[in-house]
Amino acid sequence: MSDQYIEHLIKIIAKLPSLGTRSARRIVLQLLKKKETLIPQLIQSLKDVEDNITVCEICGNYDTQSPCSICSSTTRERNLLCIVQDISDLWALERGGLYKGLYHVLGGVLSAIEGVTPDDLNIGELLHRIEKEDINEIILALPATVDGQITIHYISSLLKGKNIKISTLAQGIPVGAELDYIDDGTIKLALDMRKQL
Amino acid sequence: MSDQYIEHLIKIIAKLPSLGTRSARRIVLQLLKKKETLIPQLIQSLKDVEDNITVCEICGNYDTQSPCSICSSTTRERNLLCIVQDISDLWALERGGLYKGLYHVLGGVLSAIEGVTPDDLNIGELLHRIEKEDINEIILALPATVDGQITIHYISSLLKGKNIKISTLAQGIPVGAELDYIDDGTIKLALDMRKQL
Repeated sequence: MSDQYIEHLIKIIAKLPSLGTRSARRIVLQLLKKKETLIPQLIQSLKDVEDNITVCEICGNYDTQSPCSICSSTTRERNLLCIVQDISDLWALERGGLYKGLYHVLGGVLSAIEGVTPDDLNIGELLHRIEKEDINEIILALPATVDGQITIHYISSLLKGKNIKISTLAQGIPVGAELDYIDDGTIKLALDMRKQL
Repeated sequence: MSDQYIEHLIKIIAKLPSLGTRSARRIVLQLLKKKETLIPQLIQSLKDVEDNITVCEICGNYDTQSPCSICSSTTRERNLLCIVQDISDLWALERGGLYKGLYHVLGGVLSAIEGVTPDDLNIGELLHRIEKEDINEIILALPATVDGQITIHYISSLLKGKNIKISTLAQGIPVGAELDYIDDGTIKLALDMRKQL
């Protein structure tokens, strides 16, 4: 077997998402091949992230400051709030660069199977924000799964009577997709929700 | 977009083998979620590898010492040498735990397309070892590709007349494999090389 230091590094890397022992071994070999440059670079970058990144106390985003740059921005629409499941979804929306409001990261969706209850999500913080901040529109950008839909239903019921416009993302055929490759459920939904020209 | 420190880490990780931007993002999110434990653990392990691992001057293996623990072992068969393409192959053979001889890592195979010439491989070192050490058998455990076979041919021609037994790994149907899933080339080879019972 390879050395214990190498084995230990392989073990840590293999536990990261989308990796296993085999790909971790390939990664560690690559790191060893470029030991003089790649390892110090990776260590420095990990340290920078460790030392500088914090969770925004308002929305749950990662940033060098809390409140984060989005929450403390003066140019964004401060009465529009987009609720997302995870920070990766926030990143995806920011990459698009079209959304100009604020965010709230739930940290998951309700799930009977995985035992995720409202207390496990940042829903209390959400209600607190709605009381404190001047929000008049909420977009529920949650996943198009059963759990996502249940969470949308739950949150929208909590917000009833608060005079806030609530919407969810449009569902249908993705841009550029061929019908042949789309699942039946999406086709049915796209037909049901068809738009009059 | 996410923060510049996070982006930088994603960029470094995305360049590692078997990863891309999407999987690097998932890995960085996981690291951030377990920032207090996972990042220091990963940094420490990278440092241990950086500080302690070196390339064995004899065989090309990675180890905490040079000559490595295999080259300096007194219990291994010191006149049996296995030539491998890369350290990952050495690791694979060591995982099996059946081979008890020494190794020599070539660092690649000859390739006309990729422009790999004998000078790019540890072939000079190999000849030097054969002069100096008491080796009487060599196993060419190189890949079953055209480039691998050419390299086998090249090295065995260099070793002609040196009174060293040379062999290559057996080729055929892998253990436990169903014929249905085996490529035609392997089936042809397994038929040609069939063993009389």
